[in-house]
Amino acid sequence: MKNKTLMTDLYEITMAQTYYLEGLKEEKAYFDVIFRRNPFQGGYAIFGGLSEIIEYVKNFHYTEEEIEYLRSLNLFQEKFLTYLKDLEFKGDIDAVPNGTIIFPNEPVITVKSDIITAQLLETALLSCFNHGSLVTTAAKRITSEAKDVPVMEFGARRSRGIDSAMEASKYAFIGGCVGTSNTLAGMKYKIPVLGTMAHSLITEKESEYDAFLSYAKANPTNCVFLVDTYNTLKSGIPNAIRVANDFLKPNGYPFKGIRIDSGDLAYLSKEARKMLDKAGYKDAKICLSNSLEEFMIRDLQEQGACMDSLGVGDNIAASKERMDGVYKLSAIEKENQVIPKIKVSDASYKTTNPGHKKFYRFYSKETGYALGDVIALSSEVIPEDFYTLTHPVETWKTTDLENYRVREMKVPIFREGKCVYQEPTLQESQKYCEEEYQSIYPEVTRIKKPHEYYVDLSDELRELKNELIHKTTKNWKKPREGA
Amino acid sequence: MKNKTLMTDLYEITMAQTYYLEGLKEEKAYFDVIFRRNPFQGGYAIFGGLSEIIEYVKNFHYTEEEIEYLRSLNLFQEKFLTYLKDLEFKGDIDAVPNGTIIFPNEPVITVKSDIITAQLLETALLSCFNHGSLVTTAAKRITSEAKDVPVMEFGARRSRGIDSAMEASKYAFIGGCVGTSNTLAGMKYKIPVLGTMAHSLITEKESEYDAFLSYAKANPTNCVFLVDTYNTLKSGIPNAIRVANDFLKPNGYPFKGIRIDSGDLAYLSKEARKMLDKAGYKDAKICLSNSLEEFMIRDLQEQGACMDSLGVGDNIAASKERMDGVYKLSAIEKENQVIPKIKVSDASYKTTNPGHKKFYRFYSKETGYALGDVIALSSEVIPEDFYTLTHPVETWKTTDLENYRVREMKVPIFREGKCVYQEPTLQESQKYCEEEYQSIYPEVTRIKKPHEYYVDLSDELRELKNELIHKTTKNWKKPREGA
Repeated sequence: MKNKTLMTDLYEITMAQTYYLEGLKEEKAYFDVIFRRNPFQGGYAIFGGLSEIIEYVKNFHYTEEEIEYLRSLNLFQEKFLTYLKDLEFKGDIDAVPNGTIIFPNEPVITVKSDIITAQLLETALLSCFNHGSLVTTAAKRITSEAKDVPVMEFGARRSRGIDSAMEASKYAFIGGCVGTSNTLAGMKYKIPVLGTMAHSLITEKESEYDAFLSYAKANPTNCVFLVDTYNTLKSGIPNAIRVANDFLKPNGYPFKGIRIDSGDLAYLSKEARKMLDKAGYKDAKICLSNSLEEFMIRDLQEQGACMDSLGVGDNIAASKERMDGVYKLSAIEKENQVIPKIKVSDASYKTTNPGHKKFYRFYSKETGYALGDVIALSSEVIPEDFYTLTHPVETWKTTDLENYRVREMKVPIFREGKCVYQEPTLQESQKYCEEEYQSIYPEVTRIKKPHEYYVDLSDELRELKNELIHKTTKNWKKPREGA
Repeated sequence: MKNKTLMTDLYEITMAQTYYLEGLKEEKAYFDVIFRRNPFQGGYAIFGGLSEIIEYVKNFHYTEEEIEYLRSLNLFQEKFLTYLKDLEFKGDIDAVPNGTIIFPNEPVITVKSDIITAQLLETALLSCFNHGSLVTTAAKRITSEAKDVPVMEFGARRSRGIDSAMEASKYAFIGGCVGTSNTLAGMKYKIPVLGTMAHSLITEKESEYDAFLSYAKANPTNCVFLVDTYNTLKSGIPNAIRVANDFLKPNGYPFKGIRIDSGDLAYLSKEARKMLDKAGYKDAKICLSNSLEEFMIRDLQEQGACMDSLGVGDNIAASKERMDGVYKLSAIEKENQVIPKIKVSDASYKTTNPGHKKFYRFYSKETGYALGDVIALSSEVIPEDFYTLTHPVETWKTTDLENYRVREMKVPIFREGKCVYQEPTLQESQKYCEEEYQSIYPEVTRIKKPHEYYVDLSDELRELKNELIHKTTKNWKKPREGA
């Protein structure tokens, strides 16, 4: 099922029919993808999912079978179904690249197209954005705490289905993992695949020694022994060393190392290091795994665990978190006039930013660090020399910026239906993501209780927003809702 | 990419090579899928993912391209790659049906096949099981608290990718949702699709009244108005009623209802009900949504919220939880002798149950409720008249059972490589799942701090396990590991 256009909420189609029957099929609309809250109670998120979005938009069309199915629902008029049959995406999409550091409320993707197609893209765009960004963010939080210890992504078995596992492997790599255990992802995405053995190999044999020896004979160049099946220090490591002495060394093969997957990893890894060194295997590496996450990894670092690599499954590919990306109409175009739109909510954080918007990041020319972001109307020009950031609500909080470099964050992805974006390789995206991470103050990327990064509105946007809020609400002045 | 055989951890393949080069390609192995902990801190889980497992196993084979890729890794010998090329699944699989209530440590899937193929299935089987079971369990927790208020699944946009959304819609339905917003899932799985409008439809127009009217004209038979874009009680509901008065009623169309997606749903829904009734629309239904989960739904029930249906997104399709299913070797067969295998861990809960096993559920003939489960060796016969359940560790805890019906839980899925299982329709699975749920004591299905259901080992299995633990550990008696 290559064509997944119909993976969309039914209401997108009933709304599309509404626009169609009103004769609005040529009306241009602007939609923004934004998210409201950093995942993991962190200070940032990382953008992901663009590759799947591009694929979805490129393939966007309804098959005969799908039209037939829609017809069977008895909700749609024949002329609308005929219109859908030939529909393709002919609009523009701008987005930040995969691996970009992003913050709440920023319009990280903007779709400009006829309102019908724009509406129909919502569900799939959000699903791709939410998944890709969640995994990339999880991976970066973990790989950044691992510092120079490489992290391998092992999570396919805990993923949300086989295809979800594929995306997870990809975005984990962008987020800094050195490779994946997922062999199909290795093939498809050209990223390193890694892995050696599971406990079943050990338990299948009469003894752990036999298991290691069999494995070594069959895979002599790839010997990382899993040493915790029975008892790491009394059984696993001694047997690994015996096999290295009895088979690997005499035959000129490397004893690549061991993996410890249970027990106290700080303690066991330090003991393991001593045992391996004493046996003359200073080059044998120690890989640690077992439900690792960023806080545990930080503790392992602090407690001097001897670790040459880490395997992380659950907490990258199947993290207990969620990205809350939403898709909001920000403007429509009538007779070449952009008319900004707003959704006002009693919950202020749900009130949207109106208008066709860009967003910009200011970097200190001195330190290279990002100083803050501003969301502005697309027509605004951001001065090169001096700018005052103003808090979007508490407007007495301001920050004067000088000596900066300013960067517009979104880049063109589609123009008039054509993909104009050359996707970087995953290796390039990984490198870019790391540069992005390094450009943010450590106070903001801290994994716990981080400093809140400035994301402000331009004066013009803030004034427009307040004006529209006022205009919208003036007719229903009344006490606040609630019991 | 229909063939997904290679979506497997690399170590499955390096282990497979080990077995192959040792000449074990004909050796039979038994693997169990078990999970260790109920998700959501609940008292049960519900089995899901079987449909995807069947599809994966049926399609199991390596393409030329995949073999070529494996060759390029320089880890595999040519004769092993040749062997892989023609490999198909020729073994047996037993599993409980989708929708079955399951508990920790139960062997819910058992694979019996040549050890190479059995090993190669691990990653995909777990991914499918973990995802399907997580969603079904989440859905049942929510739909059971909703009682007779129908729940619609709305979560595609927050799912872990487009394909993951498809599986989520399917298993949400089995778990008791009445339908999905995911149109492709509706088509593919023949389940109801539902939905009407989003906030963007309202904000696109000059006024909420205009938006409702346009929608009503375009979709007159499907009018559920989203009333919280600006202000539910002062703007949304009055405008919905006006459109009903001005257009729906005069033209003989039904005012189907309203949806409230923000604010205090208990308060707003009660006020809404009064307003609709007063306007003469007693049949107009109230749908509630906004990050609903089982605890909030229980509160809404208790506080007398007026709700005719609920829309749930995040907490079914993208719950912040995880199933921890694992795949463990339990036995091998040599010369027609089943040799039980165990993995002993310092963490007792990680020590596996050895041998080829079945598991049984005892039902009271009087009440119909499930009384407890026993995991036993497949060769055992469970008596029909009297049975003593014994706690797996604290063996002084026993329960005598009489007047019961005993049920073997797993059914044949594959026999000698052929699928022998006729999958029920999703409607049948949904009904079955509800019967399953109703067969469990409410104390066990309680959403918070539930009673722990009995899952015991037969005397024979417990003795075998203890014997193997003793045999395994006697050579490394030593102080417990730790700092």
